[in-house]
Amino acid sequence: MSTFVDIPVGSDFPLQNLPYGVFSTANKVNRRIGVAIGEKILDLSVVATFYPEYVQNALRADVLNELMELGYDAWNDVRRITKSLLTTGSDLHQNTELQKIALINQSDAQMHLPAKIGDYTDFYSSIHHATNVGVMFRGKENALMPNWKWLPVGYHGRASSVVVSGTPINRPLGQTQPVDGADPVFGPCRLFDFELEMAFFIGGPANKLGERVTTKEAAKRVFGFVLMNDWSARDVQKWEYVPLGPFTAKNVGTSISPWVVTVAALEPFAVPNFPQDPKPFPYLQHDEVFNFDINLIVDIKPEKGTQTTVSQSNYKYLYWTALQQIAHHSVTGCNLNPGDLLASGTISGETSDSYGSMLELSWKGTRTISLGGNETRKFLQDGDEVIIRGFCNGEYRIGFGECRGKVLPTIPFEN
Amino acid sequence: MSTFVDIPVGSDFPLQNLPYGVFSTANKVNRRIGVAIGEKILDLSVVATFYPEYVQNALRADVLNELMELGYDAWNDVRRITKSLLTTGSDLHQNTELQKIALINQSDAQMHLPAKIGDYTDFYSSIHHATNVGVMFRGKENALMPNWKWLPVGYHGRASSVVVSGTPINRPLGQTQPVDGADPVFGPCRLFDFELEMAFFIGGPANKLGERVTTKEAAKRVFGFVLMNDWSARDVQKWEYVPLGPFTAKNVGTSISPWVVTVAALEPFAVPNFPQDPKPFPYLQHDEVFNFDINLIVDIKPEKGTQTTVSQSNYKYLYWTALQQIAHHSVTGCNLNPGDLLASGTISGETSDSYGSMLELSWKGTRTISLGGNETRKFLQDGDEVIIRGFCNGEYRIGFGECRGKVLPTIPFEN
Repeated sequence: MSTFVDIPVGSDFPLQNLPYGVFSTANKVNRRIGVAIGEKILDLSVVATFYPEYVQNALRADVLNELMELGYDAWNDVRRITKSLLTTGSDLHQNTELQKIALINQSDAQMHLPAKIGDYTDFYSSIHHATNVGVMFRGKENALMPNWKWLPVGYHGRASSVVVSGTPINRPLGQTQPVDGADPVFGPCRLFDFELEMAFFIGGPANKLGERVTTKEAAKRVFGFVLMNDWSARDVQKWEYVPLGPFTAKNVGTSISPWVVTVAALEPFAVPNFPQDPKPFPYLQHDEVFNFDINLIVDIKPEKGTQTTVSQSNYKYLYWTALQQIAHHSVTGCNLNPGDLLASGTISGETSDSYGSMLELSWKGTRTISLGGNETRKFLQDGDEVIIRGFCNGEYRIGFGECRGKVLPTIPFEN
Repeated sequence: MSTFVDIPVGSDFPLQNLPYGVFSTANKVNRRIGVAIGEKILDLSVVATFYPEYVQNALRADVLNELMELGYDAWNDVRRITKSLLTTGSDLHQNTELQKIALINQSDAQMHLPAKIGDYTDFYSSIHHATNVGVMFRGKENALMPNWKWLPVGYHGRASSVVVSGTPINRPLGQTQPVDGADPVFGPCRLFDFELEMAFFIGGPANKLGERVTTKEAAKRVFGFVLMNDWSARDVQKWEYVPLGPFTAKNVGTSISPWVVTVAALEPFAVPNFPQDPKPFPYLQHDEVFNFDINLIVDIKPEKGTQTTVSQSNYKYLYWTALQQIAHHSVTGCNLNPGDLLASGTISGETSDSYGSMLELSWKGTRTISLGGNETRKFLQDGDEVIIRGFCNGEYRIGFGECRGKVLPTIPFEN
């Protein structure tokens, strides 16, 4: 099976991918749902009538929530028909007039947040990241907290500050404590950082408050994945986070890539789940493989400088699976709604070139990261653009596109 | 000025109150906005044409978000006209046919969540509560964390699990560590607790991501207040909360009272702000009085027993004001949307009869709370109903109605 749409070599979006996004164009400013194919977008609002009636309204919506809610079988139906529409010889292939309105150049489109995010949760599921941070702040002996291997540690994040790739982020103001024990000071964050993460959108009908989602049920609640940069004001976080966790250090902004890559597209790149010892409680156990070999790359492009790769990591380094994250999130009865976003936490590999944050790459500011030329960094500077890419490589490539964001200076302030 | 609607002695809802809520009735199941008056509800969807055209759509909505967004001047316009409609001699008074459809018995109405809550934030702003918890877990010398008096400590909560008064809450399952240093166990929460809180809804047009809200601007961003019970699984929380804060211990459910009491109604009960030492940073300072004398009462009604008051506290005990909470929440640029809910944290007074949680009332389970008869408690038992009431008392009474919720047993489970 092949597509009539031109797929450039190395494209993130072959016929096997078919990720969903929400876009608009200068000519047609209303937001609509599309599927990326090569350098085009198939506008699902235009071809909705090719799909079963029960999904058509969802395909004509301006966010993906309704499609997410329809659930697993609907996702399979839609994927099958999209694939067939884009296949050589299809009705769409034979109708060049329809193609003109249904296939939009990605370069002409503006991408938007793919869903209305009801709640956003951030986990802390990379063992290398948690260990690194633990070693830095508590020493090698107490690197991992006692609960870490028993449950996927996570916290509620701020949904309103999740933005789509391309949105610039101003360096935040905040309170920091430059010297332990001294009074805090107020001013622009000095230790501004990215966090390399991935996140998935919850789909399927919501479980009611009080109802748990089992790991088995969880497999049908994962709609698809995006790349994420969870911007972090490290110095603000250090001062504010006891005892209730990160707060204003994190609601600065959280960037996600616009294309949601489905589990169906990722399945061929499944790899064994991370070995877990101790064995988790039964409510966290599952036999199903739900880990994926997704290469993750972080580049920094200084205002006047060349784009340089600072980290190469992989989704497969996560200790806890998405199914375990869902089961744990709902263990006390939390209702998970379609459009909720659950993030992995910073994904670091074992080696120092695979760390997922400047905090780790510069080892708390004790090492210098070279960006080529004379540019070096310990943390992010104004004008730096952070570009995260992700892709699975095999017989074909399943890519995520990019998650980018530029650090702008602090907005001028009086106090 | 007096109203033609009968106001029973001791009613929470005289003409000076006029709180907003969302309700439906058996005859008319669509949700609509109402204002409580005595034992009635004025259905704003029915009388919307009496109001200026620019607010009419907001009054015909099924949640308060649109009215919240319209902002301070619109709130004053709506309040003025509602007051005049309900005043003796008004058009509504003279139109008994209109009264029949516009004035509904509260006893015939079902109340719903007043707004679509985009994000929910929980602060930790009671100095007595923070001190009590600190003494219990860290000792007297280190009771308050170093940051506590410098900024209003808070964390992002779970918006989806906020429910309206009357919604029962199942005792949650979760991981706990019965003995320090031992392996955790899985099962029903044993230390289930209420938290006496108040919360306010954000109004006004949203500030953009990156834009701070000053304390001065914040005064026009507070739409109104509700009572809150932030149910807490203490033993789950203790095990899970390091280092990122409470997570599943809190998303069990958070109950709020259905009637939103506006700042305009509370202003006559303003009392001096809590004295603050050290003087906060300029971004947290304000001269405006924004503290209120609101009596808060917590009762527990066992399944087979009498309703007993276990705590009498007051909103005025809060160290940080709502204006400071808003200014701090947005200091790093967080966008606050109409309908966002910001809670106070547990409100405890100085004396042991004014503590706002079982954790404090039973002092970590070391004291017994008598509920009359033979009933005693350290934490909540299945079948216990927790009833929170709040009111200001002066020449008249501004009440909040009730926030109630009953603890149901754990849903049967296999693992």
